Amino acid sequence: MKIHYECLACAANQCQKIVEMGTDDLGLRKRGVIEAAKLMARINEDSVPAVFGSEVFLGVYRVIGNDDPFKEYKELSNKLAEKVVSDLEGEDIDLKTALKLAIIGNVIDFAVGYSPERIEEDVKAMLGEELYIDHSDELFERLGKAKTLLYLTDNCGEIYFDRLFIRKLKKAFPHLKIYVAGKEGPIINDATVEDLRKAGFGELAEIVSTGTRIVGVPLDRVSPEFREVFEKADVIIAKGQGNFETLSEVKDNRVFYLLKAKCRPVARELGVPQGSMVCLRG
Amino acid sequence: MKIHYECLACAANQCQKIVEMGTDDLGLRKRGVIEAAKLMARINEDSVPAVFGSEVFLGVYRVIGNDDPFKEYKELSNKLAEKVVSDLEGEDIDLKTALKLAIIGNVIDFAVGYSPERIEEDVKAMLGEELYIDHSDELFERLGKAKTLLYLTDNCGEIYFDRLFIRKLKKAFPHLKIYVAGKEGPIINDATVEDLRKAGFGELAEIVSTGTRIVGVPLDRVSPEFREVFEKADVIIAKGQGNFETLSEVKDNRVFYLLKAKCRPVARELGVPQGSMVCLRG
Repeated sequence: MKIHYECLACAANQCQKIVEMGTDDLGLRKRGVIEAAKLMARINEDSVPAVFGSEVFLGVYRVIGNDDPFKEYKELSNKLAEKVVSDLEGEDIDLKTALKLAIIGNVIDFAVGYSPERIEEDVKAMLGEELYIDHSDELFERLGKAKTLLYLTDNCGEIYFDRLFIRKLKKAFPHLKIYVAGKEGPIINDATVEDLRKAGFGELAEIVSTGTRIVGVPLDRVSPEFREVFEKADVIIAKGQGNFETLSEVKDNRVFYLLKAKCRPVARELGVPQGSMVCLRG
Repeated sequence: MKIHYECLACAANQCQKIVEMGTDDLGLRKRGVIEAAKLMARINEDSVPAVFGSEVFLGVYRVIGNDDPFKEYKELSNKLAEKVVSDLEGEDIDLKTALKLAIIGNVIDFAVGYSPERIEEDVKAMLGEELYIDHSDELFERLGKAKTLLYLTDNCGEIYFDRLFIRKLKKAFPHLKIYVAGKEGPIINDATVEDLRKAGFGELAEIVSTGTRIVGVPLDRVSPEFREVFEKADVIIAKGQGNFETLSEVKDNRVFYLLKAKCRPVARELGVPQGSMVCLRG
C-alpha cells in the first residue's frame, strides 16, 4: 500500500506523541519535530506509510535521545492485556472466536486508563460484530494442509490475544510448525522479539525477528534469516495495518490479513467501511 | 514568537484540511500534502509559525490548483457573523463590551453548522468570562491621546465583530484617524482587503492591505505603503494569534493584542491558561 493523502498529518501527529512521551524537555521536543520535518520531506508518491513513518520516528528517537519512548505504555498494555486474556482463557472459546479475538486485540488501546473489567465488556461487544470480509474458512482449510505457519505480530497488549489464538491453532493443527515474528527492536508500540519471549511464545512456537525495527515486514529490509522463514512458510497470518501496508503490494495468496481498518487510508485501500474487521486472503 | 513543538503537527493538520476543502481529487490531495512535506522541511528553530505555515499553505494551493480553498467557508462565516452582529447592534453595548466581543468573534467557528441563535447564546456566555490579562484601560487612555489607530484584522466572520468595535471606537474617539488592515489575497480564512470592503469598513476607516498573503504582519514582507502606515500609527490593535506571532518579537508598546489563546504554544508564550482571552500591551 502506498501513502494516501492523510498519511502525512498522521505521521506528524504520531511524532508529536513520540516527543511528548519521550521527553519532558520542550527544547528537545522542538528539535525532535524539526528532525521529523526534515525526514518527512523524503515522502513521495510510492512511499509505504509504515516504512516512511518508521524512518521518521527512528530519526526522532535519535534526536530526543530516547530509544523507546513507548516503553511504559507497552508495559502497561502487556500487563492489562495479559489479565484480560487470562480471564478469557477460562471460557470455552472456539477457533473462529479466537481469530476474532486476535483482531479485537489490535483495536483496544490498553493504556488509556481502562479497567480490565471494562475491556472485557468491550471485547464481548465486539465479538458480536461480523467480519466485513471473512476468508477464515479458507484460512483454516489451508492450515489443515500446511506444514509451516508464519504469524506476524503487531502491537504489545494485542500479543496476548495472539497467544490465545495460537494456542487454539496448535490444538486444531498439531502437525503445524509455527513461527512467530516480532520486531528486532523498539518502534512505537510494536511487539519486539523480547516482548514475545516475555509473553511465553517460546513454548508455543519458534520466535523469529524480522531483523528490522521498521513497522510491518518490508521485504527489502528484513534479515536473510527472516526472509528464509518467510519464503518457505505455507501460510502467513499478518496482523494489523503495518503488516498489511508492507505486504499488500506483493499480492501473495499465502497471506491472510487479520485487522481492523482503523484509519481511512487502509479502509479505502481495502474498499471497506472504516472500522471494519476483516480476515482477508492476500 | 518562534515555533513550539506542537506547530509542525498543527501545520500538517491544516494542510490536510486545505486539500480536503480545496479538491475532491484524491490524487491531487496526495500531491498537495507531498508538496507540504517538502516545504515543511524548511522549518528551523527560529521559524515564526504564522509565516512558516502560510508559505506551506500557499505551496499547497499552487499544487492543487485552488487559490482560495476556504472561499465558501469564509462566505458562510461572513454571512452568519453579519446576522449575529446586526442583532447585537440593537443592544446597548459599551466600549469594553465591544472590545470583548471583538475577541469573542475570533473564537467562534461560524461555519460548522451553527445557527445564529446558538452563536448568540455562546457569545453571551463568553461575555461573562473575565479577560485573563486586561490592559484595556490603558488602551482606551492611549487612544484618547492618539491621532492614528491601525487595526489589524484576523479572520472572516470575526471582522463583523471588529466593525462593531470600530464603530464604538469612532464614537468614543471621534478625532481618531483609523486604518484597518486586511491581507492582500486569500490565505486560509483570513480577511482580505476585499472582504473588508464588502463588509463596509470603507465608511468607518481607511482600508489598507498588508501587501502580503502571509498570515499576520511579517514586517520583512509587508508593502512599503503598509510599512509607512504601521510606522506612523500611534496605537496598533492586533487581533488574533497570527498578528501576535509575527509582532511579538518586536516588543512594540504601541501594540495591543486582542486574542483568545486558542492553542497551547500561544498560551505557553503568553504564560496564560489555554483558552484565556487577553487584551495585552506589547
